[in-house]
Amino acid sequence: MRAIRLLIEYDGSDFVGWQIQAQGRTVQGELARALHTLLREEIVPTGSGRTDAGTHALGQVAHFHTHSPLPVARILRSLNGILPADIGILDVEEVPLEFHARYSAKRKRYRYCIHQGKRAVGRNYAWTYLAPVDVQRMNSACQNLLGTHSFGAFCKLDPPPDNLRCTIYAAEWCREDRALVFEIEGNRFLRHMVRILVGTMVEIGLGKRPSDDLGHLLQDGRREAAGRTAPACGLHLLWVRYDH
Amino acid sequence: MRAIRLLIEYDGSDFVGWQIQAQGRTVQGELARALHTLLREEIVPTGSGRTDAGTHALGQVAHFHTHSPLPVARILRSLNGILPADIGILDVEEVPLEFHARYSAKRKRYRYCIHQGKRAVGRNYAWTYLAPVDVQRMNSACQNLLGTHSFGAFCKLDPPPDNLRCTIYAAEWCREDRALVFEIEGNRFLRHMVRILVGTMVEIGLGKRPSDDLGHLLQDGRREAAGRTAPACGLHLLWVRYDH
Repeated sequence: MRAIRLLIEYDGSDFVGWQIQAQGRTVQGELARALHTLLREEIVPTGSGRTDAGTHALGQVAHFHTHSPLPVARILRSLNGILPADIGILDVEEVPLEFHARYSAKRKRYRYCIHQGKRAVGRNYAWTYLAPVDVQRMNSACQNLLGTHSFGAFCKLDPPPDNLRCTIYAAEWCREDRALVFEIEGNRFLRHMVRILVGTMVEIGLGKRPSDDLGHLLQDGRREAAGRTAPACGLHLLWVRYDH
Repeated sequence: MRAIRLLIEYDGSDFVGWQIQAQGRTVQGELARALHTLLREEIVPTGSGRTDAGTHALGQVAHFHTHSPLPVARILRSLNGILPADIGILDVEEVPLEFHARYSAKRKRYRYCIHQGKRAVGRNYAWTYLAPVDVQRMNSACQNLLGTHSFGAFCKLDPPPDNLRCTIYAAEWCREDRALVFEIEGNRFLRHMVRILVGTMVEIGLGKRPSDDLGHLLQDGRREAAGRTAPACGLHLLWVRYDH
């Protein structure tokens, strides 16, 4: 038995999300189908975490076990041939059997992209939000996120997660060409966490909330106290980091 | 009468090109329709030059004349509301009546993007070309382009252009994240010129042509001596520069 790790890029626009569901096209489902075509085994790859419908990944990680002796370079080339255009395999590696894409993950980094004017190129990869925002206020708000906190206010409650605690190592907004880009790095993220943080920080940037509001919301812990959930299409999973 | 200049971004994927044609969806046609809706005048905006079907623009420039007193900020906002999602107006400015988007243009810069592995995100904005190429050879080839030359070998011949001479100020390949990017700046470009240059340089990068081949081809002047025309989807018009 071998454990294989995939490094995956996908355009989330036409998926109902990462995870296989009763209805709809999923990244996990397309991968399972391609692996079956290639290896003739029933394989459901395990991802580092789910992504929502419309959310993109530049470096999602998944693992699976197989009896196949096929070299990793062949798996890479063949999967890319079989998979549809909106999923690309960037790397395939054989890993120790105990490797687990979710449980072994140590850090993740996400990017959220906002277009502050109507943009044509890359419009499926950003939230178009026209009202001007104060980026300095939003960056000052980011300071409240650093460290370990309970993120109950920034989490989809249905179903409620067991563990609300996350450690954030970096969180920053910057202007990049014609876009406004937020990047956040942490040990783990809850469902919708980055999108609710972005939606709330935009309200801070508009002056609708005080710039230290994130600190209060982390204390408060109620989802309804935080801001709206920013659209999924602006969100990109950049990478997942492991120890080895 | 006022002259208005538009700074335009478009995603060329679903257009048969810039220029209005008997059949098919064009950028110029969509702009004309939107201007008619907004200003109730028959206006066909003049672009800085055509772009091919599938080619994108981050900074195309066009001008038109109008009797309308509508403020430029209103024109910007309204056009963006009327135009489809794959055309965005970035800026609207009133310019002297003698301004001409094509004849007044002094410099243009294009980017050509190649993905050297299967990529999902941004796949409509690049040529996926898997064979490894020697970027150093391709950059050494670029040296032959600088200065003023007759580009007959790098030009669609039907119809034959009056003037084959172009001055190239900069031409360089670089690796950028997971892509291979070529940028070229010149006073003017012939039809398919950047795409034929890219197709020929890729053949140099593969070792199929000597690295000084572009110099010979500029001398030779026959289209059939040069390489293939690289696909349109990798090409982006970055900007057009004017004097004032």
